[in-house]
Amino acid sequence: MRALEISSLKFDEQGLIPVVAQDSKTNRVLMLAYANRATLEESLTLGKLVFYSRSRKERWLKGETSGNFLQIVELFQDCDADTVLVKVNPLGPACHNGTTTCFEERDDARN
Amino acid sequence: MRALEISSLKFDEQGLIPVVAQDSKTNRVLMLAYANRATLEESLTLGKLVFYSRSRKERWLKGETSGNFLQIVELFQDCDADTVLVKVNPLGPACHNGTTTCFEERDDARN
Repeated sequence: MRALEISSLKFDEQGLIPVVAQDSKTNRVLMLAYANRATLEESLTLGKLVFYSRSRKERWLKGETSGNFLQIVELFQDCDADTVLVKVNPLGPACHNGTTTCFEERDDARN
Repeated sequence: MRALEISSLKFDEQGLIPVVAQDSKTNRVLMLAYANRATLEESLTLGKLVFYSRSRKERWLKGETSGNFLQIVELFQDCDADTVLVKVNPLGPACHNGTTTCFEERDDARN
């Protein structure tokens, strides 16, 4: 696999890069969010995923409020160096809706 | 899972949305690329993934040259309706480098 090398990454015009978080055990895709160089570097330091929130325009430590951190297991980049894939150990549901992944319906949406 | 509903999607300022392709059998994340509304609709019609190439600024039927189409198995969207996840059956290596996924090194890069 292609190990992450932050210095080689191509960030977009806003200085961001998409980050795909995948459960290292189940291989489920949990979520996609964006990071800038600083939050990626902080992720490596902390061992937990830190994103940049495009809506709030601020650093966003995933799990800071909920406790549902995404612990980093392994980081990769793609052939174009413009996407990051991170295998993670999620400490709880990855979605703010309480679901394991952001690609699921909430239980109440099924009623 | 949250089924894709194109009319509900939030495309970015360029009219694009990131699409994560995941192998439906192995659950490996193969690649991330971008689609606009038209290429997403064409994907549904064809049953194969059609992207929009940001570098070439044109429609891009994945596999059109190589034959390595990504046959669509299931499509999902996330809680914010700004990311698409597609489970696919890849007809060959997903990466233009010849590797199964875009997150691997080429064999020759290991030498």
